[in-house]
Formats: sequence, structure tokens, C-alpha cells
Amino acid sequence: MPTVPQLFQPRLRAHVSVTFHHIVEAARRIGPYIHRTPILTSAYFNDLFSAELFFKCEHLQRIGAFKARGACNAVMQLDAETARHGVITHSSGNHAQALAYAATLRSIPCTIVMPRTAPLIKKQAVMGYGAMVVECEPTLEDRERTMQAIAQQTGAHIVPPYNDERVIAGQGTAAMELLEDVANLDVIMAPVGGGGLMSGTAIAARAMVPNIDIIGAEPAEAADARISLETGVLQGPPQTMTIADGLRTALGDITFGILQETHVRIVTASEDSIREGLFRVMERMKQVVEPSATVTIGALMEQPDLVRGKRVGVIICGGNLDIRTLNR
Amino acid sequence: MPTVPQLFQPRLRAHVSVTFHHIVEAARRIGPYIHRTPILTSAYFNDLFSAELFFKCEHLQRIGAFKARGACNAVMQLDAETARHGVITHSSGNHAQALAYAATLRSIPCTIVMPRTAPLIKKQAVMGYGAMVVECEPTLEDRERTMQAIAQQTGAHIVPPYNDERVIAGQGTAAMELLEDVANLDVIMAPVGGGGLMSGTAIAARAMVPNIDIIGAEPAEAADARISLETGVLQGPPQTMTIADGLRTALGDITFGILQETHVRIVTASEDSIREGLFRVMERMKQVVEPSATVTIGALMEQPDLVRGKRVGVIICGGNLDIRTLNR
Repeated sequence: MPTVPQLFQPRLRAHVSVTFHHIVEAARRIGPYIHRTPILTSAYFNDLFSAELFFKCEHLQRIGAFKARGACNAVMQLDAETARHGVITHSSGNHAQALAYAATLRSIPCTIVMPRTAPLIKKQAVMGYGAMVVECEPTLEDRERTMQAIAQQTGAHIVPPYNDERVIAGQGTAAMELLEDVANLDVIMAPVGGGGLMSGTAIAARAMVPNIDIIGAEPAEAADARISLETGVLQGPPQTMTIADGLRTALGDITFGILQETHVRIVTASEDSIREGLFRVMERMKQVVEPSATVTIGALMEQPDLVRGKRVGVIICGGNLDIRTLNR
Repeated sequence: MPTVPQLFQPRLRAHVSVTFHHIVEAARRIGPYIHRTPILTSAYFNDLFSAELFFKCEHLQRIGAFKARGACNAVMQLDAETARHGVITHSSGNHAQALAYAATLRSIPCTIVMPRTAPLIKKQAVMGYGAMVVECEPTLEDRERTMQAIAQQTGAHIVPPYNDERVIAGQGTAAMELLEDVANLDVIMAPVGGGGLMSGTAIAARAMVPNIDIIGAEPAEAADARISLETGVLQGPPQTMTIADGLRTALGDITFGILQETHVRIVTASEDSIREGLFRVMERMKQVVEPSATVTIGALMEQPDLVRGKRVGVIICGGNLDIRTLNR
């Protein structure tokens, strides 16, 4: 048995519990609160890969990442009595800002548990939305313990970052928009961390373009999803470091099941490829994106045959990068 | 008499020689070869300045800057016999790439004279368009002398970077598009270096919205345009350094005359304000822009009263920034 951290109370499920219908409903539900992000093309990358690439720009989404979609879809579904007690999560990343943003839409309390070592700028970003930040020790155990304790005291509703049907359905709306806006895609690609975006993407893509090739990209240094899918055994979080820090997360049981059933293929990118992809997106497309967003491009630089001659949708997951310390 | 370098054979003129009609013609002429760039808005900057800002995104223009417009407008007007001998300029900046790009459209030779100290990446960018790079000593005199010598030998036609009616008319198409796309602007702003963009912007804006407030922004460390307009005496290029290196240029006699006649107001920004504006555009709008582009935003951070409560068009001039050495 692999060691899977008991994070956000994972449940064991026999089959995929999120359907395309849930994504369509999520799109209707969250439409007023999120941006329908633009799709950019780049002659440079088309030439580089001898393909037609369509970049879905979730770095231009509210809070600078696709995470706004899932958090809004979860929060908007809460009944009034549940919502009244507020929402809580533990995160030092984009999900923290996303939940804080979603809570403002219903004017409900929001608590974010963050390790005390998290950068001040991340705490400030969350507090900027009126959320309360509670610090904890920088271990998964203390994050979880602190969150559960507060949830019990306050009755706050826990919104997990990815292993949650409502969150997955929300994230799937990005791929749905992409496939609505660009016809005849042969391939759709997204980064894989906990698998929330990838699961939503795969469900939408399989429903809308049944024969599409669905490719998830993860850092070679954090290739737990690839191993999980190859072995059929859910791996724990990688112990290694990667500049795509948003992707240093294991799949959950729900996202693992969805990736298995939708036949997602996983490819990897080295740290050098991710970094080079990051610079080239900034230099050539003039877009500020985060390293987690260029793991797809890094993987294509290593394996251009994956897309040669094809029409490829690429989901750019976010743009929350500390530009002031980029080269340090 | 001030010392005005005899750069690109300046001519003395009695009145404005570029009209709105020239800009309309330029738009028709260059339309197939340039992007109609998008206009972005930002809730963050609207809040910061208590105004409605509309950013015209010339960093998403071909070659990454508005300069593609003027170069194309000049090159497309050459008769076949003149064009046959090719075009030449001296520049280590965006005008070099712009002219190289424009030359490819007519498949004519292009020579760029660059100081031997220019970064390799700039030479490579120009050579990537098939232009020839000729190195010279890093002085204005040697740049000019080298260019004139080659032009005489080859018959190549000189396309100056800003003090040229065709170039000015081309640059004016950016403001024309902005004013077509956004109604009821109270203010239009652009950076001022040699004054090509500012001249074209002012002519288009005065014709399309006669009472609009036209504001040029330049670095406080390179405030030659402000002094020129205040004193009525054309100043030479500033001797100081600025991170907005594209703006370390004096006005020419043509651009000086246009800025006088169109009642352009000049404001300045400190180096700190330009830098802070740069980071905030990248952090909040997720756009990669060059420091010359954020001198407008830096000036507004120092003087928000200029635009409070108003609808403001801001031309983002370009995005050619060395992202790999940003923090060094």
C-alpha cells in the first residue's frame, strides 16, 4: 500500500462521480463571477512545434488562475445555513485566493490556514479579499489539524483544493470554453498537480470531442501522476522540489479515478524545459505566467512529435509569479 | 543655440507636415501587415487612479512594439526603383527590428547599423528577419557616418526612427485604433522619446476628439521634451541614464513642431515610479511590457489628479524586455 496522506478526508469511489452535465451547470452558476478568458495564438510556438496551438489564458482569470472557477462553483452551491458559518481551507497557493474571492461573492466569512513560513505577499493577497489567515506549522499534519479544529469550532465548511466534485466541475469550465471557442482540436493539454484541472478538462473534452487526445503534463521531478496511472496505484506526494511548485501535490482518490477512466496520458518536463518554456512565453507572447503553466510547453519542447501537424489546445493555468525575484 | 545632433539630416519646417489624412492612409496601407492590437482594462489600476483606463497593447504588436507601424508605412510607400536598393537605419532598439520586418514584406535588402556593444540578442533578432547587421563604434557620430557611407555605396534608402513624416503617420494609427475602439475618452497618454509615437498620437487625437487632453510622459532623468516645449528651444539628447532606455532620445525638428502645435502636455516619472509601474503591470495585468511603456503609469502614480474621474487611453508602447536579467 502506498502512503497516501489523509488530506481533506479522501473518499474511496467506484466510478467517476463528475459528469459533463455538472460542468455545464457549473458554467451557468459561475458565469457572472469569472472571466471568459481569451485564447491567444503565437506564430512563434506554431513554428517551433509545427502545430497550431491555442492557449486558454487562465492567467487572465480572476485571482490570476483557473482556481477561481472551482472555488466559486463550490461556494455558490452552499445552502444558506451552511454558508452562514463560512468556508475554510488550507493553502498557500492560488486556491487560497480563489476561496477568499468566492467568499466575498456571498459575503460569508473565509478562513485560510497557511504555514507560518508562507511569504507575506501571499497572506496579504488573501487578506485583501477580507479573509482571515490562521498560521500553523509548515507540515501537512499541522495544516490539516489546524483546519479541522477551526472547522469544528466555527462550523466553517471545508472547500478542498482539488479532490472535490464541485471543485472539479468548476475547473472543467475552462476546457469547455476552449472547446466551444476553437473547433476541431486534435489534442488538449493541461498541467497536472492534484488533478483538479486535469480531471475537469478530461471530462469536458471526452464529452465534447470523444476522440481527442488528452495529455496531462507534470514535472519530471514530481511525476507521481504518471506513476499512479502506470501502476494503477495512487502515489503519495513527491518529496522532490520543482520550480513548478503548484504541481508538487499528489492526486486524490477522486481525481485519480477520473484520470484513469478518461484515458489521460501523462508526459513530463525537466526543470530546464519548464524554465525555458517560461522565458519563451514571456519573451514571445508577452504574457506573465507561472512555472506550473509552462510544464506543458516544456514537455512539448522535449517531445514535439506529440503534436506535430495537429491542432492543440493548451490550458495556461495561472500567472501568479513573483516577478520581483524572478532571476534570484 | 542648443546643440542638436545632426542625426538623420533634420530639416527645418514652418508648420506641421503630417495630417490626420496621412494617418488614415497609413492605416489602410499597413493594415494587412500589422495587428489591430487589443485594448485591456484593469480593475486594479482603475481603483488605484479612481479613473477608467484603457490600455492599447502595442507590446502585442508585431516585433513587440508600435515601431512596426511606422516602418511598414515608410517601406510600403517606396517606389519599386528605390525599394530595389533596400533600406537602412541605425538603431539598437525596436526600430531596427521594425525596419527589418518591414523589409521582409517587400523582399528587399535591409541593413541595420548597430554599435558593436549592442547585446547579441538584439543583433540576432534583426538577423532573424534576414537583415544584415553592420557594427560600428558606440558613438552617435560613428553610427551616422557608417550609415551614410553604406547608403551612398548601396543606394539604400534611409528610414529614420521618428523624425520622418511617413514614420509619424504610421505610429499615429495606434491612437486612431484606440479612439475608434473606445468612445468618450477625456485623456490620451503615450511615452515620449524621439516623439514619433507622441506626434502621431497627438495628430490623430486632435482630429478625432478635438478637446481631448493629450499627455506625453517621459523619465524625469530624460526630460528634454518637457524643457523643449517649456522653453520653445529644441533640446539635445539627455546625458543621464534611465531604465526607460528607449526614451533617451531628443525630439527631432518635425516631432518638436508637431508637439508644439497640437498642445501636448509633458509629465515626468522618477526611475522608482517607472520601475514600480513595470512590476505592477506585470503582477496585476500579467503583461510583459518594457520600462519605456510604464513611464505613463509611473507619472500617474506621482500625479493621480491628472486623471481622477476621467476616461483615459494609455498607449503601451512595447514589450521588448530582457526578462532573463530583469532583477540583476
